[in-house]
Amino acid sequence: MIMKKGDAFSREFVVTEKIYSTFVEAFNDRNPLHSDESFAKQKGFSSVVMHGNILGGFISYFIGECLPLKNVVLHSQEIKYLRPVYLNDKLFFSALVDEVHDSVHTVVFKFVFENMEKVKVAKGKIQIGII
Amino acid sequence: MIMKKGDAFSREFVVTEKIYSTFVEAFNDRNPLHSDESFAKQKGFSSVVMHGNILGGFISYFIGECLPLKNVVLHSQEIKYLRPVYLNDKLFFSALVDEVHDSVHTVVFKFVFENMEKVKVAKGKIQIGII
Repeated sequence: MIMKKGDAFSREFVVTEKIYSTFVEAFNDRNPLHSDESFAKQKGFSSVVMHGNILGGFISYFIGECLPLKNVVLHSQEIKYLRPVYLNDKLFFSALVDEVHDSVHTVVFKFVFENMEKVKVAKGKIQIGII
Repeated sequence: MIMKKGDAFSREFVVTEKIYSTFVEAFNDRNPLHSDESFAKQKGFSSVVMHGNILGGFISYFIGECLPLKNVVLHSQEIKYLRPVYLNDKLFFSALVDEVHDSVHTVVFKFVFENMEKVKVAKGKIQIGII
């Protein structure tokens, strides 16, 4: 297997206006938490909150484009959202190979997203298959 | 609580060319499985496979726009990808309230995505908070 337990990967992502607006255009989730500044503030957030599934798009890029092999497919993905992510937040994504199962050609990663204040905003697990 | 265990929701989603291309534009995952027809066929798929995290965008829309209340936030999301999803697939999403925790204002859903051949393509769990 080209990856082994303990292998570490990292990547910076920025939640740009373009990513935010493109996500909304694609999926049409205009919930007030994501679109209404005064609603978001009334609920205790400093501004409108970015959609949690934008982080899923970053995970897609990581799996599809940042690994040392391209012949991969997502098997499963778990994510816990710990803190809000705001527009223009710079997110530091890091992933660690947690399990390698050569016989079934699968790899499990643990990952975290931290913001620019080193606050963990999300964490989870991803299982991929080597195809 | 406005929702109770057993409450059921459903929605149809179509993976349109627009959604696919907008997702790629936003997140730049051009892995050959998602972009190279001959690679995908060589790996045993009938065509390029849609990004698993496109389903996450549909979940975002479901949570943000299809529930009987808008004051919600995603706590966590787990998804298992069971079968490939192709361009223009019509997906039938159904979600069931599995747990309601009034004291901590959380609701857990179990969900499945089925394609037009009634094949289960993905399933998982979503926890939301009422804010």
